[in-house]
Amino acid sequence: MKNVLVLGAGLSASSLLRYLLQHAEENDWFLHVVDQSLSLVQDKLGNSSFAKAYDFNALDSDIRREHIKTADLVISMLPARFHIDVAKDCVDLGVHLLTPSYISPEMKELDAAAKEKGILIMNEMGVDPGIDHMSAMKIIHEIEEKGGELTSFKSFCGGLIAPENDNNPLNYKFTWNPRNVVLAGQGGASCFIQNGEYKYIPYHRLFTRTEVMSVDGYGDFEGYANRDSLKYRSIYGLDDIPTIYRGTLRRPGYCEFWNALIQLGLTDDSYKMTNIKEMSPRKFLNAFLPYDKEKRVEEKLTLLLQNPILYKKFEWLDFFNDDIRFEKPEASPAEMLQEILVRKLTLDPDDKDMLVMHHEFEYTLGEKAYKVTSQMVNIGEDKTYTSMSNTVGLPLAICAKMILNDEIQERGVQMPIVPDIYMPILEELDELGISFVEKEVEIKH
Amino acid sequence: MKNVLVLGAGLSASSLLRYLLQHAEENDWFLHVVDQSLSLVQDKLGNSSFAKAYDFNALDSDIRREHIKTADLVISMLPARFHIDVAKDCVDLGVHLLTPSYISPEMKELDAAAKEKGILIMNEMGVDPGIDHMSAMKIIHEIEEKGGELTSFKSFCGGLIAPENDNNPLNYKFTWNPRNVVLAGQGGASCFIQNGEYKYIPYHRLFTRTEVMSVDGYGDFEGYANRDSLKYRSIYGLDDIPTIYRGTLRRPGYCEFWNALIQLGLTDDSYKMTNIKEMSPRKFLNAFLPYDKEKRVEEKLTLLLQNPILYKKFEWLDFFNDDIRFEKPEASPAEMLQEILVRKLTLDPDDKDMLVMHHEFEYTLGEKAYKVTSQMVNIGEDKTYTSMSNTVGLPLAICAKMILNDEIQERGVQMPIVPDIYMPILEELDELGISFVEKEVEIKH
Repeated sequence: MKNVLVLGAGLSASSLLRYLLQHAEENDWFLHVVDQSLSLVQDKLGNSSFAKAYDFNALDSDIRREHIKTADLVISMLPARFHIDVAKDCVDLGVHLLTPSYISPEMKELDAAAKEKGILIMNEMGVDPGIDHMSAMKIIHEIEEKGGELTSFKSFCGGLIAPENDNNPLNYKFTWNPRNVVLAGQGGASCFIQNGEYKYIPYHRLFTRTEVMSVDGYGDFEGYANRDSLKYRSIYGLDDIPTIYRGTLRRPGYCEFWNALIQLGLTDDSYKMTNIKEMSPRKFLNAFLPYDKEKRVEEKLTLLLQNPILYKKFEWLDFFNDDIRFEKPEASPAEMLQEILVRKLTLDPDDKDMLVMHHEFEYTLGEKAYKVTSQMVNIGEDKTYTSMSNTVGLPLAICAKMILNDEIQERGVQMPIVPDIYMPILEELDELGISFVEKEVEIKH
Repeated sequence: MKNVLVLGAGLSASSLLRYLLQHAEENDWFLHVVDQSLSLVQDKLGNSSFAKAYDFNALDSDIRREHIKTADLVISMLPARFHIDVAKDCVDLGVHLLTPSYISPEMKELDAAAKEKGILIMNEMGVDPGIDHMSAMKIIHEIEEKGGELTSFKSFCGGLIAPENDNNPLNYKFTWNPRNVVLAGQGGASCFIQNGEYKYIPYHRLFTRTEVMSVDGYGDFEGYANRDSLKYRSIYGLDDIPTIYRGTLRRPGYCEFWNALIQLGLTDDSYKMTNIKEMSPRKFLNAFLPYDKEKRVEEKLTLLLQNPILYKKFEWLDFFNDDIRFEKPEASPAEMLQEILVRKLTLDPDDKDMLVMHHEFEYTLGEKAYKVTSQMVNIGEDKTYTSMSNTVGLPLAICAKMILNDEIQERGVQMPIVPDIYMPILEELDELGISFVEKEVEIKH
């Protein structure tokens, strides 16, 4: 029997645990699942005889090591910053580790030690990062194999509301941590390379420099640049590629609205505002509008925006309301904005979310040039088995199965960019409904 | 004989030292002046028999204390962050201290200890802070004495190029540390209060929300908001004033140009750029312009700016030059921008600088409302006795004289906001050519 230790059973672990439970008997697995809420774990494990719930403190190394010691594989669903301590224990005790998070510099440093111990620390095995790597590498390798030369790679991903529940003027609801959405793009310019030219977009221009793309059957989306696209050149073995760009997807119109919030200064998280107790959304907005004793807030915003469609979005979000009060006693503009948005943009009980991924490749072969697009749209099942949970949890679960079945030979600190790993995972994801549609056309000038 | 220890003899100490030397004999003073460059001090002291030059390390507390011990007054012209250590020595040894810099929180904490020792630590005795406090407090106190109620206080200050040497399209040259100019306004929103409404301007909007004012004989200026205007309410005893605003002055057109630099992302100091070795000002600019393979840099900037006057300023600053290389091997956009600007905006050997200060007060008295303006324009003498040096050094020097003559009764950590201190200083500054012109008009609605 193989023992699997899962640290953390929050929202994003639902689909992972369901898959592992469904396949436990046939594979002779036993799951040990720990979360600070025992009832949460018990809910997710049901009455399975192939799993046990724990509520010990997963951040306490001593207790954690007792459980890692007897495991064949550890899956860490803890917040990303805690993975490194788990990884050190796993290296020390010689147990494989699997996480959905980016490889941190400290994690990278464990590579030699992990190889020496003969263990695998597989990271970036969720959706973004995760499925994005795997689906892109598959096409990159295919193009390289037939002798094509890649000239451009653009990749976009977004967590959105499913079309059937898309019923507000922003065409957006929070399907993930709202704070990350409010702060998206902050902390330095976004950089990428376009036809050999390095390009930098400062935060306050980010949502004005968008690209629009269509997805068959789902209409149009717009993408804004993610922070550092340049690092993907070496990760994907594309050091000399003239164009590489990674972005986040929203529905058309969202970025124009978000730009208006940025221009006003409402997304700033660098200072706390004065006098919050007396503030309403209306007074909050007014603090960022030029003073004019003759004009009401509505008039000042109208003059500033010069755009009735944008204006209606502010109105719908209750920005002119003078009765609502803020919950936090001390808050940055970004925190106050988050309170305003969460009131209106939270998922309803029956809402489903949607995950969209869009890759665009251009390559030359002989005298000809081609463009390949690869698109994936996935709709959540319900409030528990969301698309976010499925697209994060299922690649983890399939990879866990492969590790437990000794189907992965790689050791050390890894991410899923080799065919032996990504091919079986992409194939099984496809069977589970997470499917890419690829198209290729010749580029005519 | 009274001994005065002056720590630091850089540019801003020139006018201070000249005044002290000129008045040394009649007052029986002896100056001890230390700088890391002995020849610099000797140059400034000439062959005076009332002063001695030193080059000991002013940051070394042991050596410094030996000299503080025998002094009647210490004047610290060191960079602001070093004042606190000097102040601790002065408190310990019971010697008065004078600085031109803002009172730091640590400095404030020395207040009780300084009072106990019977010494004065006088700060903010330069131009901004310094002359601004004194000239404003004089009018505030006059209004309060006649029973007026202040409803608005706006104050602006700027270091600029003198009109006779104002010969470039920006109407600006660096008369002070260029790095501070390039980073001006960064690090949080500017906040102030206008007619009882708190207002916040994010950095990327700061140079679009300007006010224009005229100075008799010197034409128009525009002002942008300084960081935190709110703290001046308690300092000036104006806790309930409905409007308070402090700003920086530039010539009209400068802010529009600076806004274009900010919008492009060129003032960002939060990250280092890639590939600097291969960069010219042209390539640097292009990195922030959207990619367009059909268009040259000039065309892309023209399209973006939609403003030929702004465009000519970029051209004049050599932004289209592809031959110039950057000095720093690794640099942020702000550092690269500084290199580009310093090439063209540095003072010529015969250039004179100019200091402009503009206060605006509004008050009610009985049924009537009044507006008072107070303006000061000062032109530098030459490259050494600049207006910046005179307006920083002369209030320090006059205050030093008053301390040495026992004309100041205050003890503890102080700034110049009481009449006993600011009146004699403003009067002597006026004799020395640093003069305010005050005007009062009734406000008619």
